[in-house]
Amino acid sequence: MLRESYREELDDINACLVEMANSVGSAMSTATTALLDADVALADLVIAGDERIDAVRESIEERCFTLLARQQPVATDLRTITTAMRIVGDLERMGDLAEHIAKVARMRFPEHAVPQEVRPVLLEAGHIAESLVTKAGTVIAKRDVEAAIELEAEDDLMDQLHKQLFRELLSPTWVHGMESAIDVTLLGRYYERFADHAVSVARRVVFLVTGEKPAPAVTDPR
Amino acid sequence: MLRESYREELDDINACLVEMANSVGSAMSTATTALLDADVALADLVIAGDERIDAVRESIEERCFTLLARQQPVATDLRTITTAMRIVGDLERMGDLAEHIAKVARMRFPEHAVPQEVRPVLLEAGHIAESLVTKAGTVIAKRDVEAAIELEAEDDLMDQLHKQLFRELLSPTWVHGMESAIDVTLLGRYYERFADHAVSVARRVVFLVTGEKPAPAVTDPR
Repeated sequence: MLRESYREELDDINACLVEMANSVGSAMSTATTALLDADVALADLVIAGDERIDAVRESIEERCFTLLARQQPVATDLRTITTAMRIVGDLERMGDLAEHIAKVARMRFPEHAVPQEVRPVLLEAGHIAESLVTKAGTVIAKRDVEAAIELEAEDDLMDQLHKQLFRELLSPTWVHGMESAIDVTLLGRYYERFADHAVSVARRVVFLVTGEKPAPAVTDPR
Repeated sequence: MLRESYREELDDINACLVEMANSVGSAMSTATTALLDADVALADLVIAGDERIDAVRESIEERCFTLLARQQPVATDLRTITTAMRIVGDLERMGDLAEHIAKVARMRFPEHAVPQEVRPVLLEAGHIAESLVTKAGTVIAKRDVEAAIELEAEDDLMDQLHKQLFRELLSPTWVHGMESAIDVTLLGRYYERFADHAVSVARRVVFLVTGEKPAPAVTDPR
């Protein structure tokens, strides 16, 4: 491979990461709609689509392997490639979480998995999740450290929504029973984990650009 | 670095992975005891210890980077190193999940987070989790494909325990309220994810040894 085309390959891998982030974002947005509208067709779309996201991961990883083997890059190029290999891992996992949300919608269909009073919280969680992965795409595309910082702030909103979900569940007015409570508990977890991975993507890029590792996210068991 | 010492470095990184698996196993075992005995001192031990596990990940990753840069390995050596970099990711996450369990114990102390009737299920889940990570260590140490297959079978037991946990929560005799139900729901998730990562470690090694990718685990939102 010529040095020229090597540079092009690196750029193209980065473009594929951004595209993968977009696919994950639309999977999450579709999964949230499937959940809130009890739309099983949309749920199936997300579940079927996850295979494609997994395949993109495979292909990006293979291309990274090939670059490592053929070009034996050092320094920044080496870190760029190993960072890409970690980012695809985060993005694939985000796709899985969108699929989990779609599967909850499918499992409860034709019922709504989500009681009326928590739907606004999950709708908002869906919007933030989408916005987080879009920002993560921008961070990847533009090596944009500022966007990475904004992204962290937005993740705090997700944590607040997550706590709000628990308040709903714990309120004496919760009349929807245990099954629904289990669903909502896990759904909250999926959205929160999705956000955590978006933060992780951003941090990997920041580390690549600045060489400084941000403090690790404080993980809350709730 | 001489070729000789390069080979030694590869072997030593593998030994560190096995050691890391052992640390994660003892973190999980301690976390389960902390949870079931409402032992806050043990919980704090796990929470404090997770930093060391994270540091081991850092150090192994750094050593892999250095090998990639200095030795520019190809073929099997290249895959060995990139596999190691993914395995540390799984192991670190397993450590996080043990920490999550310890944090639930700490959050409820001096109360027991787990009602009497689900304690046997979580005790068993803890045993299986420990056994899974021990087997994962053996798979890493010996490139043992047979042990990898056993490990998958044991993961099925974890899935059954997870379903049993939900049956307990959904039984009309559940009188422990919502907060406890939320804790148990998330605890079940943590044990299940811990097991999933052990399976993932084993599969990475199998792929490294055989070149064949096992079918991906079916992920269940519940």
